[in-house]
Amino acid sequence: MTDRNVSTTIDFSTLSCPAPLRDYPNIILAHGGGGRLSNELIEHLFLPALGSDSQDALRDSAVFDVEGGRLAFSTDSYVVQPLFFPGGSIGDLAVNGTVNDIAMSGARPLHLSAGFILEEGFPIVKLKRIAEDMGRAARRAGISIITGDTKVVERGHGDGCYINTAGVGVVPPAINIAPDLARPGDVVILSGTIGDHGMAVMSVREGLEFEATIQSDSAPLADMVAKMLAACPGIRVLRDPTRGGLAASLNEIAASSHCGIVIDEASLPINSEVQSACEILGLDPLLVANEGKLVCIAPQQDAEQVLQAMHADPVGARAIPIGRIVDEHAGVVVAKTAIGAKRVVSVPIGEQLPRIC
Amino acid sequence: MTDRNVSTTIDFSTLSCPAPLRDYPNIILAHGGGGRLSNELIEHLFLPALGSDSQDALRDSAVFDVEGGRLAFSTDSYVVQPLFFPGGSIGDLAVNGTVNDIAMSGARPLHLSAGFILEEGFPIVKLKRIAEDMGRAARRAGISIITGDTKVVERGHGDGCYINTAGVGVVPPAINIAPDLARPGDVVILSGTIGDHGMAVMSVREGLEFEATIQSDSAPLADMVAKMLAACPGIRVLRDPTRGGLAASLNEIAASSHCGIVIDEASLPINSEVQSACEILGLDPLLVANEGKLVCIAPQQDAEQVLQAMHADPVGARAIPIGRIVDEHAGVVVAKTAIGAKRVVSVPIGEQLPRIC
Repeated sequence: MTDRNVSTTIDFSTLSCPAPLRDYPNIILAHGGGGRLSNELIEHLFLPALGSDSQDALRDSAVFDVEGGRLAFSTDSYVVQPLFFPGGSIGDLAVNGTVNDIAMSGARPLHLSAGFILEEGFPIVKLKRIAEDMGRAARRAGISIITGDTKVVERGHGDGCYINTAGVGVVPPAINIAPDLARPGDVVILSGTIGDHGMAVMSVREGLEFEATIQSDSAPLADMVAKMLAACPGIRVLRDPTRGGLAASLNEIAASSHCGIVIDEASLPINSEVQSACEILGLDPLLVANEGKLVCIAPQQDAEQVLQAMHADPVGARAIPIGRIVDEHAGVVVAKTAIGAKRVVSVPIGEQLPRIC
Repeated sequence: MTDRNVSTTIDFSTLSCPAPLRDYPNIILAHGGGGRLSNELIEHLFLPALGSDSQDALRDSAVFDVEGGRLAFSTDSYVVQPLFFPGGSIGDLAVNGTVNDIAMSGARPLHLSAGFILEEGFPIVKLKRIAEDMGRAARRAGISIITGDTKVVERGHGDGCYINTAGVGVVPPAINIAPDLARPGDVVILSGTIGDHGMAVMSVREGLEFEATIQSDSAPLADMVAKMLAACPGIRVLRDPTRGGLAASLNEIAASSHCGIVIDEASLPINSEVQSACEILGLDPLLVANEGKLVCIAPQQDAEQVLQAMHADPVGARAIPIGRIVDEHAGVVVAKTAIGAKRVVSVPIGEQLPRIC
């Protein structure tokens, strides 16, 4: 990983050296980090083995035709540690995370499934709290959890509670949103502060204390997305920057759309406690997970309307434009730093913070 | 649990004593066994907490209206140990199990999601074998795996590989299948031998050797179900007797439909090696999991046609009628034994064989 400050030009030829899968005979934590090694696993192992014929297969969500309409379908497993943290728990994360993945297709989420893998000896009172958090999050997001499954593994084999949710949503007609649709000139809009979720979990794990507790931003984004699409059906890309942070989302969009992205690093909204925690732990806020934020790519002429729609929703109150899609350096994300320099924002190899969601 | 031989009458008043949830402050293995404790967890914890308003909620699969049609939606997590066993692996189990849950709504399965929770250090070559098994099973079942997720947990925290799959299918018009639709006079049809999957896994774990290796029956049932419904759209109930075995499925049907069920125990097809293994381990084959079998409740006048349709499919070649829905002893399943006695087939408290799927 080579995040470097370069004052004038960037030598892009040195940037791409994904570690080949064969160099890792065993799974390492980074394979689950949503970065390069996760992508390697999908491209070199899962896609060929599962016989999926699309490069987009096995991504965060999929859209398929059924009964004359289009449905979005998505799944995520949640293994966050600790199970409870300021601003949320594995329960509301498991609902919001999958609701948001569905919303990133432009779809209105309808129903979720819930699969629990519990460890023998896990206190039922904690399971109740988690399930109540899921129920509350489901009501807030306007969806229902309609099918489920519970497995129990022997003491010492699991990890308290793992949850998988899968979700189904309806994509409205005439909406077409995908990571390969960004075009030069488009505006990059961010819905609010970055790094809150990751640093909320890390602060608990590391025992960091600040004047104000860092709260996870875990929240459902589907209502705001519906407002945004009502105001501007021509939105091109929506992505929620979870694992791998804003850096991973922007790099995915740049690579899929064969465009470059330039962002203004000084404009990124970051809560001061999050900034301090990142500095103490030596982490780049661009790489830290969010659970209630989205990045939107919209045509320039629509950007103002999209921003207004976002500001009308509590989860988008601090939305701002942070950059542009450009014709140069296809596939590469560049940040203009506060001192006017440029740096490449590269995809993390793995996750700098494991077990964050 | 009181499976008892009684020669004449049965005192049903003593049969129902579900252990209240509060007696178990912590999760025990039986909570994941698909029996009474699993039901307790669903009814007393998950349903109130998740705010689901239907008693049918959070069962194996759910059907919902969308875009003018009806979709079936189902999920299962797979934690089987060992990961590979004669006749299958966690990979094809994860596809067939969810495909079958969808098919039990009468639906044609379309797409699956796959969520992996891997343990740090898990050999990638094993993951490849599992994913290839999933791909093969998906092609056999005629479905595609279109969205996915991979998480990695630290060494010692997971258990090699857990898989969750969720699936979506289309319910054909005019098909209405549910566990509460059995009516007195209906015929109970079983698609083939029981106990193969559970005993295949147990034989490996216990190091049992027989003249012929016991093979798991893991197989997709959706094609056969389509043939059955084409021959007889009036089929009332379909259930795949997985965790908790045939006993759990029949008890669920009897309880939901407020009917009794009488089966002829001597008619149950059981492979001789499975019978021997059950005797050695002291297990009741009626309680052992299957992964490629179904039980069908059909009106008497349709039973012959349904049987013909089942016999026309390899997975139903040994289908036979095994009993009747009766007007007496509502909610209770009774088996006529080989010596002409009757015994109550009760719901297992949990799973006699943990980690079977």
